[in-house]
Amino acid sequence: MLGPTVGRLTLCRACGSRCLQQIRSKVLSVDNMNPFVKEMEYAVRGPIVIRAGEIEQELAKGVKKPFNEVIRANIGDCHATGQQPITFLRQVVALCADPVRLMKDPNYPQDAKERAQRILDSCGGKSIGAYSDSSGVRVIRDDIASYISERDGQPASAEDVFLCTGASDGIKSIMKILMTGEGGKNRAGIMIPIPQYPLYTATIAEYNAYPIGYYLDEANNWSLDLDELKRAIDEARPHCQPRAIVVINPGNPTGQVLTKKNIEGVIEFAKKENLFLMADEVYQHNIYAEGSAFHSFKKVLTELGSGYDLELASFMSTSKGYMGECGFRGGYCEFLNLDPGVKAMLLKSISAKLCSSVAGQSAMDVVVNPPRPGEPSYDLFQKEKNTVLNQLHLKATMVTEAFNSMEGLTCNILQGAMYAFPQIFLPPKAIAEAKKQGLTPDAFYCYQLLEQTGICIVPGSGFGQKPGTHHFRTTILPTVDKLKVMLGHFRDFHADFLRKYS
Amino acid sequence: MLGPTVGRLTLCRACGSRCLQQIRSKVLSVDNMNPFVKEMEYAVRGPIVIRAGEIEQELAKGVKKPFNEVIRANIGDCHATGQQPITFLRQVVALCADPVRLMKDPNYPQDAKERAQRILDSCGGKSIGAYSDSSGVRVIRDDIASYISERDGQPASAEDVFLCTGASDGIKSIMKILMTGEGGKNRAGIMIPIPQYPLYTATIAEYNAYPIGYYLDEANNWSLDLDELKRAIDEARPHCQPRAIVVINPGNPTGQVLTKKNIEGVIEFAKKENLFLMADEVYQHNIYAEGSAFHSFKKVLTELGSGYDLELASFMSTSKGYMGECGFRGGYCEFLNLDPGVKAMLLKSISAKLCSSVAGQSAMDVVVNPPRPGEPSYDLFQKEKNTVLNQLHLKATMVTEAFNSMEGLTCNILQGAMYAFPQIFLPPKAIAEAKKQGLTPDAFYCYQLLEQTGICIVPGSGFGQKPGTHHFRTTILPTVDKLKVMLGHFRDFHADFLRKYS
Repeated sequence: MLGPTVGRLTLCRACGSRCLQQIRSKVLSVDNMNPFVKEMEYAVRGPIVIRAGEIEQELAKGVKKPFNEVIRANIGDCHATGQQPITFLRQVVALCADPVRLMKDPNYPQDAKERAQRILDSCGGKSIGAYSDSSGVRVIRDDIASYISERDGQPASAEDVFLCTGASDGIKSIMKILMTGEGGKNRAGIMIPIPQYPLYTATIAEYNAYPIGYYLDEANNWSLDLDELKRAIDEARPHCQPRAIVVINPGNPTGQVLTKKNIEGVIEFAKKENLFLMADEVYQHNIYAEGSAFHSFKKVLTELGSGYDLELASFMSTSKGYMGECGFRGGYCEFLNLDPGVKAMLLKSISAKLCSSVAGQSAMDVVVNPPRPGEPSYDLFQKEKNTVLNQLHLKATMVTEAFNSMEGLTCNILQGAMYAFPQIFLPPKAIAEAKKQGLTPDAFYCYQLLEQTGICIVPGSGFGQKPGTHHFRTTILPTVDKLKVMLGHFRDFHADFLRKYS
Repeated sequence: MLGPTVGRLTLCRACGSRCLQQIRSKVLSVDNMNPFVKEMEYAVRGPIVIRAGEIEQELAKGVKKPFNEVIRANIGDCHATGQQPITFLRQVVALCADPVRLMKDPNYPQDAKERAQRILDSCGGKSIGAYSDSSGVRVIRDDIASYISERDGQPASAEDVFLCTGASDGIKSIMKILMTGEGGKNRAGIMIPIPQYPLYTATIAEYNAYPIGYYLDEANNWSLDLDELKRAIDEARPHCQPRAIVVINPGNPTGQVLTKKNIEGVIEFAKKENLFLMADEVYQHNIYAEGSAFHSFKKVLTELGSGYDLELASFMSTSKGYMGECGFRGGYCEFLNLDPGVKAMLLKSISAKLCSSVAGQSAMDVVVNPPRPGEPSYDLFQKEKNTVLNQLHLKATMVTEAFNSMEGLTCNILQGAMYAFPQIFLPPKAIAEAKKQGLTPDAFYCYQLLEQTGICIVPGSGFGQKPGTHHFRTTILPTVDKLKVMLGHFRDFHADFLRKYS
């Protein structure tokens, strides 16, 4: 390969001289590639998950392990862990995909056919194979506006909505316009909770922005402490231009559901500090705890009345909730109070992606426009929806109780979402062993768990945690029976681990 | 709103004093938002297309126009202009979406059921609602590798393939890792054809890279002139770090199909200049001209043998070809000869998007794994595929002949793809009138055409053209009957236009 250049001679890296078989050096190496891509980390698909995949392959090849299967509790992938699709949603998507055959099929209910036909009538050439408008199929945006309006008791407009490839894509689109285009202390600063969902740190790294981490208050069930917000922004100001605050409600990985009062406090803070509000509300259907309720930032902001015209973007997805349709990559963003010029630039910016998957948009339509009482699919839809949500409620309780009953583990109440983020109190010997192996203590714990039980969870360091504390994130998605087995193995492992390192 | 700050007092912009009704200024304005987003342009969904949408609304409201409908020849959106979906593709997608009902439906052919079942077996929980691996569903990547291998007579590996949200998304993923993370003359330089597909200039602007435009040789049917490549890179070197060359073959918007010899020349150039090759090959099924054939960069590169281990990324899509399934957002990228560390970073980078739509991936699977002779769906599939391609062939000829028969218009032979990019020789009076209206001359021509005939095409300035020349891009997608009418109206408009401004 091309080695050092001496005078006008380029020496071959392989043999050190000017040989005839000089091997080309690559254009791109890890040393010269995009440094911001290099820096980004995405823990829910990180090295421990890659190791889990290797173990699965070893098992398939007949390698003996103390377990028969890997339990993937690392990612909120509902169907992969056994959740069944909602019939009505799949009927509508199938009807959109193959109307020629299915519109006349008596096995498909009339309400599903009507939903599908309405979507198709709004598509170019009445086909979901046509590009939609960049912001999405018109009637689906109308339905989203109606859904928001019904949810909040406040008006909503299809003009303030665009569909996206999962919520992630919408979040990245909004973050993109928030960038300053400058480096160093002129970089955009984005406030994010710690712990956070790693999409945020990954995107901030990729865009060369500055993450302003604010700690959630673990002692108060992961609520947002306003003094902590102030501390975080004040410390960050010399390093960046603070521009936005991200709130994840219900929380991922932390499972808290914010009170209306807490949201009002955040809005007051954003107003005072002149921040753009980004509300990640993809778990708005996943509320379990007695007394908890979902309050959208939009509703709380609007109810605060005049003077509260803060810029807000809120995100929703088909991937979570009761439907769990991650693979469809459906999502939407509602934005409010944008400067009209900025709105035009945002829409231009998303137009270069052409549009999000129209099949995913159709799935989103069912979520915002489900069967109504009196329609043929209503009863089945309600039954399936409630089954999923009731199971999640049950599993949220099972997981919290199990972790809190183990020595050296504490877990806040899971008020919503689909994850637990317990704190582990690791013995000094375990911490020393982790250090010896070049791992963070929580990663060491998670790797041990994986190798000994096949349970794949993600170390807290992938989400962020207060220095000196250790956590992990697990989903609550395995089926009730499998979760029981998993928690049993977890308990045994944990007891062994503590014995070994105490 | 918040105005200037005097001492510790912030004055209200509305009244100039410290009033109680201070109106907040926006966090984001056009002046302080991401400047690179502001700079990007995406002509195929640009202002003329927005005007076309307004005209449609005016028509719907009963406003009288010299035409009854807008003909959208601005974007390669096959189904929107009347192309019918391929039955087998839609059957497979519908089966994947609703297997519970359709796997036992006797109206669905066995081969479609087998394809769908194989995809589902490779999905988490056997559901297309589960996330796939970031690089895509395993068996679909296997099928892509087989397709490439069969196409080129060269080995291909599923490990070198990832699925993406349309080819656009794959192109952006590869461009992203090519960035240097620096500004000024340390920016990455990306060689792109002029004229080009605006995704490239849009992405380059968004990433703050440097576009190195090389002119295609209009006098030689838009071939790549190697001296021109050299001129372009030499002129650009003081302004950037040249890193990659993009070739679109078959060409968009120019419709040329490169000869093997021409491709070899480009590869030699890239080797000498140490460039990463990006081959946009989404029109590989759209070849019409006698004597033209598609040669993939992969095949030509591999056949050049040892010493030609250049880094290459090639892109394919479900959106074009005979299937035209734009709305499914299916696509793949095959990459070759990447440094292993860079490959790991690329895969990490796409993992933060989780995965592309699994419905889109399923559509892609049908494209690379169509019915084989002897299978129940083979005959119908072939018939539908050939009908589409034959019609496109006919329309390519119709369009070229029509434009070349008009005074002051010349159009190269459409060897492939789905567009014509004729040159218009505009009279000085028309150029003066355009200037008066603040428009480029080609945009003025296109706006006049739209307002007088309802035909929506895109000015050449949106794709790039040699200074002093004027072009437009039109698709060849309207149905044969509609295209005849469109070309008739075009001819009348063009004659009137020349008369008016001569």
